[in-house]
Amino acid sequence: MPNPKPADQIPLAPDTLERLRGASTSTIATLLYKKGFRNCYVQGVLPLSGGARMVGPAFTLRYIVAREDTDPLTAFREPDHPQRIAIETCPEGSVLVMDCRQDATAASAGSILLTRLEVRGGAGVVTDGGIRDAEGAAALTMPVYAAKPSAPTNLTKHHAVDIDVPVSCGGAAVYPGDIVVGDSDGVMVIPRHLADEIAAEALPMEDYEAFVLEEVRAGRAIIGLYPPTDPASLDRYEAWKAGK
Amino acid sequence: MPNPKPADQIPLAPDTLERLRGASTSTIATLLYKKGFRNCYVQGVLPLSGGARMVGPAFTLRYIVAREDTDPLTAFREPDHPQRIAIETCPEGSVLVMDCRQDATAASAGSILLTRLEVRGGAGVVTDGGIRDAEGAAALTMPVYAAKPSAPTNLTKHHAVDIDVPVSCGGAAVYPGDIVVGDSDGVMVIPRHLADEIAAEALPMEDYEAFVLEEVRAGRAIIGLYPPTDPASLDRYEAWKAGK
Amino acid sequence: MPNPKPADQIPLAPDTLERLRGASTSTIATLLYKKGFRNCYVQGVLPLSGGARMVGPAFTLRYIVAREDTDPLTAFREPDHPQRIAIETCPEGSVLVMDCRQDATAASAGSILLTRLEVRGGAGVVTDGGIRDAEGAAALTMPVYAAKPSAPTNLTKHHAVDIDVPVSCGGAAVYPGDIVVGDSDGVMVIPRHLADEIAAEALPMEDYEAFVLEEVRAGRAIIGLYPPTDPASLDRYEAWKAGK
Amino acid sequence: MPNPKPADQIPLAPDTLERLRGASTSTIATLLYKKGFRNCYVQGVLPLSGGARMVGPAFTLRYIVAREDTDPLTAFREPDHPQRIAIETCPEGSVLVMDCRQDATAASAGSILLTRLEVRGGAGVVTDGGIRDAEGAAALTMPVYAAKPSAPTNLTKHHAVDIDVPVSCGGAAVYPGDIVVGDSDGVMVIPRHLADEIAAEALPMEDYEAFVLEEVRAGRAIIGLYPPTDPASLDRYEAWKAGK
Amino acid sequence: MPNPKPADQIPLAPDTLERLRGASTSTIATLLYKKGFRNCYVQGVLPLSGGARMVGPAFTLRYIVAREDTDPLTAFREPDHPQRIAIETCPEGSVLVMDCRQDATAASAGSILLTRLEVRGGAGVVTDGGIRDAEGAAALTMPVYAAKPSAPTNLTKHHAVDIDVPVSCGGAAVYPGDIVVGDSDGVMVIPRHLADEIAAEALPMEDYEAFVLEEVRAGRAIIGLYPPTDPASLDRYEAWKAGK
Amino acid sequence: MPNPKPADQIPLAPDTLERLRGASTSTIATLLYKKGFRNCYVQGVLPLSGGARMVGPAFTLRYIVAREDTDPLTAFREPDHPQRIAIETCPEGSVLVMDCRQDATAASAGSILLTRLEVRGGAGVVTDGGIRDAEGAAALTMPVYAAKPSAPTNLTKHHAVDIDVPVSCGGAAVYPGDIVVGDSDGVMVIPRHLADEIAAEALPMEDYEAFVLEEVRAGRAIIGLYPPTDPASLDRYEAWKAGK
Repeated sequence: MPNPKPADQIPLAPDTLERLRGASTSTIATLLYKKGFRNCYVQGVLPLSGGARMVGPAFTLRYIVAREDTDPLTAFREPDHPQRIAIETCPEGSVLVMDCRQDATAASAGSILLTRLEVRGGAGVVTDGGIRDAEGAAALTMPVYAAKPSAPTNLTKHHAVDIDVPVSCGGAAVYPGDIVVGDSDGVMVIPRHLADEIAAEALPMEDYEAFVLEEVRAGRAIIGLYPPTDPASLDRYEAWKAGK
Repeated sequence: MPNPKPADQIPLAPDTLERLRGASTSTIATLLYKKGFRNCYVQGVLPLSGGARMVGPAFTLRYIVAREDTDPLTAFREPDHPQRIAIETCPEGSVLVMDCRQDATAASAGSILLTRLEVRGGAGVVTDGGIRDAEGAAALTMPVYAAKPSAPTNLTKHHAVDIDVPVSCGGAAVYPGDIVVGDSDGVMVIPRHLADEIAAEALPMEDYEAFVLEEVRAGRAIIGLYPPTDPASLDRYEAWKAGK
Repeated sequence: MPNPKPADQIPLAPDTLERLRGASTSTIATLLYKKGFRNCYVQGVLPLSGGARMVGPAFTLRYIVAREDTDPLTAFREPDHPQRIAIETCPEGSVLVMDCRQDATAASAGSILLTRLEVRGGAGVVTDGGIRDAEGAAALTMPVYAAKPSAPTNLTKHHAVDIDVPVSCGGAAVYPGDIVVGDSDGVMVIPRHLADEIAAEALPMEDYEAFVLEEVRAGRAIIGLYPPTDPASLDRYEAWKAGK
Repeated sequence: MPNPKPADQIPLAPDTLERLRGASTSTIATLLYKKGFRNCYVQGVLPLSGGARMVGPAFTLRYIVAREDTDPLTAFREPDHPQRIAIETCPEGSVLVMDCRQDATAASAGSILLTRLEVRGGAGVVTDGGIRDAEGAAALTMPVYAAKPSAPTNLTKHHAVDIDVPVSCGGAAVYPGDIVVGDSDGVMVIPRHLADEIAAEALPMEDYEAFVLEEVRAGRAIIGLYPPTDPASLDRYEAWKAGK
Repeated sequence: MPNPKPADQIPLAPDTLERLRGASTSTIATLLYKKGFRNCYVQGVLPLSGGARMVGPAFTLRYIVAREDTDPLTAFREPDHPQRIAIETCPEGSVLVMDCRQDATAASAGSILLTRLEVRGGAGVVTDGGIRDAEGAAALTMPVYAAKPSAPTNLTKHHAVDIDVPVSCGGAAVYPGDIVVGDSDGVMVIPRHLADEIAAEALPMEDYEAFVLEEVRAGRAIIGLYPPTDPASLDRYEAWKAGK
Repeated sequence: MPNPKPADQIPLAPDTLERLRGASTSTIATLLYKKGFRNCYVQGVLPLSGGARMVGPAFTLRYIVAREDTDPLTAFREPDHPQRIAIETCPEGSVLVMDCRQDATAASAGSILLTRLEVRGGAGVVTDGGIRDAEGAAALTMPVYAAKPSAPTNLTKHHAVDIDVPVSCGGAAVYPGDIVVGDSDGVMVIPRHLADEIAAEALPMEDYEAFVLEEVRAGRAIIGLYPPTDPASLDRYEAWKAGK
């Protein structure tokens, strides 16, 4: 299979994004694993602040290594600097994913640009580089997932070259339009053509796990229950569901 | 000396575990250093939530690298899957130590299994791999020490092979029955045959350091006091103890 | 240019340190970048506790790798042990910078020594090694920037050899007297001969960014505003300043 | 699927090992990839000397981290030291695979022990640790694949604990009896139950690649030829084979 | 400055490539350093075989991380697979530079494709990934610079996405048309707009260093000679040149 | 124990250096291990060319991280640049040991300076950084041990600050005057006060290992022979010695 089709050619079911809001990244990881996908977790990236959940299609920014002549401080004065363009063109509801080659020794963005993205309706940010003024970024409502705070300007290490092309981020492939989900365990990238299926399968799994957790807290053993190899587990689950 | 004797052949003094509850990992590290042990700290592992102290004998689970045929999602349906068995057989009061080859790109366990271990009386968990649903794990009363949150299921990278054998964890050797102690600085592994001695030596050292801290806060200089090369330091300490 | 002149031969403007207290590390990084300095950020080091800002001239301690004969526990009994001497001689208002060769598998100091430094008036601590009793260190008023908590005593890996010589810390060069600034994004090292200039340039930049953030929150786009390539941006800024 | 069956329960076809002697590791990697195996290459390990090919079932030695009390120099005087036992019991024709946790800062064996293994009929050695007297080891007829030369004795870092158990080596799972193949590109581990199939598929693939190389040298383009999506490629191949 | 102009818009002086054939990478590194370029060395890449020198404009291939659905073995059957297209379209005299994100756990190409590139007139290959059948690749006349041999097919880790776009390789920025020079010290990337200048400056520097080496072998001290701060050094050099 | 005494205060026995010329680094590593020294191997450093053995007291050069203002290309014009001074003052018969913080992304010296050191009688060079014109350096008679070839000038990453002070090199402590021994397995650093003992103990051990190797080649098993726990092994050894 060649590169996936552009995102806008694969429509999503109307409730897919909403369903994924109720799915944890660990559930999504398990469902993707079941379908043969072992590498959709963005390694080395965590939320700057707790609590936030993030769901949205990927809009990407590709950085290569900076070079002294292409990356003076005046580069930001270019009206078409790709980092600025990305911030101003990322569609509402999308997640901006930045490929920094897993190099967080410099920032990929700071709180001012991220505030602009929040105002514009961005659903979140994922970067395998650093974030400067990370405290300001963490205070946003829009979730920001990054490798770590990093004070140096992105020009120090990162030269923005492309917008909305396939990239790597934290060792995962990210195609524009893939569905990006984040929670306190980090970020999963769902290949767009699987998003509907994953969304449909996730909620029953979350539900069963809520039941399992209750059983476990009540003293039930894991074996036979999780996964439910003992039919009695499923019977109790049906009763539990009925009782909700 | 060959591999240490099985844990149950070396009895502990009755108050050793209780004493170690009052000992910090940095004190234990210093006492082990004094005896010639330079490598008993589990590198790269911190508590998922603050505050918790952990003490207990090690019960181990060994993972090797996963392989596509041995680690399908259905592996968890095996009634003798070693990870599940470990959770269900770890003795009450023991600490489950998982050897993930310092690879945290996937989880080694998640909050459901850890809840089960807590219910069964586990004293804590140490893993040099990741933990999924780390937020749920952090909310347990039982302390969990891990490299980081990690959404992918353990099957992605880790194949459970052995229970209660000698393992490496975070670059430290861990033999079943070794005494594992954790606090906010991380985790120390005390070779079981040294646990009584370390426990006996730790409390006086903690006590002297409490005195030193008071002196330092009152303006006393370090040299002569810490360590007490000036006999006057010891005199003041005796007075301080008497005055408590 | 050979090694920079000793710190006391380059006087600072009277308000430089005070001005730098109002400058973020990301602003300082940008200003240094503009002058051609790409490598003044201490990589891999964050504050042990949030909120604290740190400014002061560097006072350095150099560690090399420990060796079994030079680093027994009794080494601390030497009245001239360089780590102890550093704690007792670091000038009031200075920042103690420790070069641990980016090895945090052992501590470089613990809370007792850091308390002593705080009592003596130290402005802060930066280490690319670990800190033991990191919880105690984090509770100090004096900010502590470190790679991570680490229980093993410094003797395990680090042998203190020199005080107040040029060192590397977190991949940045640090000369005695350089001005060290820390905030939640980490630590920047300002070459001393540039500190007055950076301090003078930082506040207008912070001020403009405060204006930009307000504009962005109000819905203004980035391009033309940040940097102010559109003259109207500067006009609004002047009005904003006048209105404060 | 649980842990694979012990090696001696899965017989190999009589000519499997011989066939694999004619298969390159890159061909084997491709064939395993086709069957869904992505992780059977021993990362970070190359032959100490050029030219040698290696084929044989795995016989494993597991090391954990050394500890000062379990690994004095006198440990080698124990008649049952697992490293010595491994050298003396590795079956003729087998490959000794040592799991050193990818730590080559110390040796896992030296030329004297490896000479003994060669005399005993060992088919080769693979270690993700170091080799001491690597020059002597490289001069053996028996191939030795290692991370690098390393002078320190294995006791410095590696404590031998187990023989012939499943291990990890260079990030690959190795079960006793798996077929280990090495050439100048490094080492592949073939799950034993696939060895017959891989051996059968490898030679036609090697043969086709020999034809392709001739065609390419003669000026033929890759597309349509490699893989043979153009039927004419297969026709020429048949003619080439007939003409050999 | 935005991204450099396409390569064919900046003509080279007619003898630039030829002159660079006589320039070592260390000379080029020094000349670029003098112009303010500190990051044009491809880190972690050495020639597979000794002796070869390489000069040519860069033609690039960009890989991202592979994914199970986009990278089955049948991907090579696509007539427009970018890796195959790159091999078949790289201009004669150009150097194929592959961006593998510094991940050499799989190959980026093998000897068959590289042979095809050699037949087509390629000037060389640079990859920060691995090379399979590295022995075959090393036997080519065309120089191949790589991180290391690696048996797994590129599909295992690398998905080819783009041809002739700006990339990173070994931590250096590479724009199509940049001049790539390799020798036994590795590979330097000369920004195309500087190639004429570097070529013109390199030969006098090489010449002076040949003179210095003769002087040093004859017992002359370095200081005053290298660099020639003593005018007598330049006088002797003039005489040496005249005498050649 | 504080820092070791200056080298010239600890005389060596007259034949110590000569004896060490017959000792392999693996033998020295074992003898140091026996005395409790686990960390005297210079990690990550191998000879640029095969065959050479190196013995001599350490003369050290300390580099810190370079900074743009202290390290312009004109820095080499300073008559007191420490790298140049080190080359011109390293005593005849000494080994120049350079501390590059294990960073080989730039060179620490090149073939011209190393040729000068050879002419001056240097016994060898050890660096945990890179070497430029490594081919030229490898062609010297004087052995050069380095991390790898690296084209960038040392100014790119390394600022020379000190001569003949204690340093770290490849993770080992090196004090001026320590005895440095290199062979194809790399480099060991013998604390100077132990050099006579190690030299005296090494030759009998080398001799016994020569006997063992002969026995092993003749079919003798390892256990009882190496180490000689079977008295018959020692008897045969005595006979072997007598027969030489």
